[in-house]
Amino acid sequence: MANTNEGKAKSTSKSGGKKKEVKKETGLGLSFKKDENFGEWYSEVVVNGEMIEYYDISGCYILRPTTMAIWDILKDFFDDKIKKMKIKNCYFPLFVSPGVLEKEKDHIEGFAPEVAWVTKSGKSDLEVPIAIRPTSETVMYPYFSKWIRGHRDLPLRLNQWCNVVRWEFSNPTPFIRSREFLWQEGHTAFATQAEADAEVLEILELYRQVYEDYLAVPVVKGKKSELEKFAGGYYTTSVEAFIPNTGRGVQGATSHCLGQNFANMFDISFENEKGERAKVWQNSWAYSTRTIGVMVMTHGDDKGLVLPPKVADLQIVVVPVPFKDADTQGIFDACTATVNTLIDAGFRVEADLRDNYSPGWKYSQWEMKGVPLRIEIGPKDLAKSQVRAVRRDNSAKMDIPMADLVEQMKVLLDEIQKNLFEVAKQKRDACVQVIKTWDEFVDALAHKKLILAPWCDEEEVEKDVKARTKGEMGAAKTLCTPFDQPEMEEGTLCFASGKPATKWTYWGRSY
Amino acid sequence: MANTNEGKAKSTSKSGGKKKEVKKETGLGLSFKKDENFGEWYSEVVVNGEMIEYYDISGCYILRPTTMAIWDILKDFFDDKIKKMKIKNCYFPLFVSPGVLEKEKDHIEGFAPEVAWVTKSGKSDLEVPIAIRPTSETVMYPYFSKWIRGHRDLPLRLNQWCNVVRWEFSNPTPFIRSREFLWQEGHTAFATQAEADAEVLEILELYRQVYEDYLAVPVVKGKKSELEKFAGGYYTTSVEAFIPNTGRGVQGATSHCLGQNFANMFDISFENEKGERAKVWQNSWAYSTRTIGVMVMTHGDDKGLVLPPKVADLQIVVVPVPFKDADTQGIFDACTATVNTLIDAGFRVEADLRDNYSPGWKYSQWEMKGVPLRIEIGPKDLAKSQVRAVRRDNSAKMDIPMADLVEQMKVLLDEIQKNLFEVAKQKRDACVQVIKTWDEFVDALAHKKLILAPWCDEEEVEKDVKARTKGEMGAAKTLCTPFDQPEMEEGTLCFASGKPATKWTYWGRSY
Repeated sequence: MANTNEGKAKSTSKSGGKKKEVKKETGLGLSFKKDENFGEWYSEVVVNGEMIEYYDISGCYILRPTTMAIWDILKDFFDDKIKKMKIKNCYFPLFVSPGVLEKEKDHIEGFAPEVAWVTKSGKSDLEVPIAIRPTSETVMYPYFSKWIRGHRDLPLRLNQWCNVVRWEFSNPTPFIRSREFLWQEGHTAFATQAEADAEVLEILELYRQVYEDYLAVPVVKGKKSELEKFAGGYYTTSVEAFIPNTGRGVQGATSHCLGQNFANMFDISFENEKGERAKVWQNSWAYSTRTIGVMVMTHGDDKGLVLPPKVADLQIVVVPVPFKDADTQGIFDACTATVNTLIDAGFRVEADLRDNYSPGWKYSQWEMKGVPLRIEIGPKDLAKSQVRAVRRDNSAKMDIPMADLVEQMKVLLDEIQKNLFEVAKQKRDACVQVIKTWDEFVDALAHKKLILAPWCDEEEVEKDVKARTKGEMGAAKTLCTPFDQPEMEEGTLCFASGKPATKWTYWGRSY
Repeated sequence: MANTNEGKAKSTSKSGGKKKEVKKETGLGLSFKKDENFGEWYSEVVVNGEMIEYYDISGCYILRPTTMAIWDILKDFFDDKIKKMKIKNCYFPLFVSPGVLEKEKDHIEGFAPEVAWVTKSGKSDLEVPIAIRPTSETVMYPYFSKWIRGHRDLPLRLNQWCNVVRWEFSNPTPFIRSREFLWQEGHTAFATQAEADAEVLEILELYRQVYEDYLAVPVVKGKKSELEKFAGGYYTTSVEAFIPNTGRGVQGATSHCLGQNFANMFDISFENEKGERAKVWQNSWAYSTRTIGVMVMTHGDDKGLVLPPKVADLQIVVVPVPFKDADTQGIFDACTATVNTLIDAGFRVEADLRDNYSPGWKYSQWEMKGVPLRIEIGPKDLAKSQVRAVRRDNSAKMDIPMADLVEQMKVLLDEIQKNLFEVAKQKRDACVQVIKTWDEFVDALAHKKLILAPWCDEEEVEKDVKARTKGEMGAAKTLCTPFDQPEMEEGTLCFASGKPATKWTYWGRSY
């Protein structure tokens, strides 16, 4: 049960010993280790941590309350931010008629194989099959065309929180790749490219905050290659995360400038201030429940989930530790009083007063669920007017005088949030490998590195790299060209083509 | 343009005259009157008020920002309340496999004809057609069976905010009857009937608050008849609204006790404190975007929407009224300053500083959109350090010293909220007709009354009334048996069967 990832020694205290016994009896622990079998570990930890329940339709998952609490917190943050940017919420239908869906050729080519079709209602066949939205560009833009007449109708900035369906067949993975998922999708139209460009980056910064400030997951901001950009778009920016255990990048969220391509297809034009007709510039941007899977993969350990305090529905659990001859009622009362004090101070906290489980069993259960802080109250704590606090992230234990409780909890939760990010960042940074040649590239890929390479930025070269690295594990591709570019010496050549390199780009396998 | 419903005289002021002209030019007004052609008026007001856009798939509608802002406010209220009741949010898949969907016979009989089926993905046929949820009882309860083992797992109280699909064929109407709609659905399981019963009423009270306290729509709390209860449930309670113009009841929201029927079908049992196996008691409850349609029908008038201040995204609009030789810049500055003052005080407010529309045109547009309060600032107001306020609900105008602005806006918005409810309640109450005989019933029905009748509570009698009143307008049925029962004299007979009556029940046509 040692947290092998964190390199922490296993606790040898009595309660640690007890815990293990109880677990053996109840099967509460995980049967797979994160470092040994990451895939099985992940499937098990999302279920045992009660985030996900597998469903009887493949690729669909039940999002349990721990998950939805995180989603609601992220949503409150993001929704508030975009409302301040004067972006309004709306809701467009789940269903799309085929003619509209197929209007933009590049776009539909990207999605067509994954579109789910409704063909019957009750026992009757529909006259025309109806598609379920895989994304809403083609759902919305005919109405953008209708609503936008003059420059005073711009900008038009809409967002919706909804479900979308992509009937994928390969490797369904909870949160990361599912046939239905929840997301927000923003769709905006501007008079000028400058305004559209500015919004793309403003939204991307919010996505960085979702990952780094809330989920404590480090990400890289950058631009996708032509091959990897959004189907039908002009350019795509993204935040990219990295999972050291599998050596795979994860596209965390994307903010696209669509340019005027959809505006041409759907005739979204306006009369500008000079009285001339002009096409709008459009963006679309989205983040999904995938965020939560990246968080689980990043912080989880062999004891279970590890939730960052800012998104944990339950931040602190209070466990009574009664002893044979001690004042059990006094201990339970102290737990209740502690909870009440902390609730009044604004923490999300609960006492676990169940009398049919041992303290050790409870510790294991709350560790599995990833609760950031545990407070234990036993006879000695009662006598000394203190509580014992145990951190989930690094197992550190400390005694805290009741008088300092509220203040210390705040400090500890802040430290946990910060530490989770720092540890994840160190691990991610340790995976970054700067390479210059093809041999170095192949070697780094074999060692699951996040590869930063000088590239000529030619689409054919990326296709060639994909072809040459194809195999069981999947091909390597560009993840992004980071906005934060290291200096490049004059005369640097592309690692793959030998042509002059124009930029540093991250490469790797990805989810 | 007179508000004929409110019985208010048409304004004959200059601005009133101007308004009319501008409207003729621009087609901003409504072409139908609420009292003359309610159906057309409704379709037009939801579109011109920018709540709804018609969509290219029949029975599906686009919910525009004005609508979503209302939905978000109702959601924040309700979500907060149920979280305090320790009900947790979750998310179950959109898709249901046929075996599970069809497990509860009565239930599926109620929904089967309206279920939409996915049979293809991309170009491939699915092995088994998959249903889209019309509601989630059968989606969720197999997992309730899995999660509930002992009495400590109870109560289990979940809720989800989602879309559902019912492919109905008759009379699609925005908000009221649409093929896809948004709702919350709560699903809970308890050890005892007493707990389930208590929750049913607690939730129903929240639904009353949604309608009465937020949407200013009066409703009746009561119980549905056996014929009208939820398919597969034990008993159904509801809040019922009434639309005087059409003489139709509207089921506003329902809170069902499911009893142990689904628990039997899906084997949801637990070990109780005595160590015996027992079946759980379940509830389900829901309100949908229908709420918003009822609000529009209730308050809207011949000028457009009328939004209650508590749910209006925009509560106050500030319009400058420049005059030829007056200090235009001073007026515009005063508008901006007024808006800033009101934003700081927490109001949702905007200035309409467009220079290409006349004040009269703006008045009409904001009236169409239902903004509760308009502030006009002209040269005289500037000189006197005052603003002119105009109420949307009753067209009352008043001058307000700038010094009292914040305080007076609060008073006025509260008054509007209260007045909308009072006026709606008076109109609704004026429609209630107490009857005792079949002839009185038929006459009241013809006069679009909300009929309160003594009834024997026999299912056959309700079926018989339905059969006897069948016709173009639709049959009459029970709306609910109100919890608030008038006294019933001994010996009172059922209006339809002549048998002894056991209760007063509301009857009428309904949506």
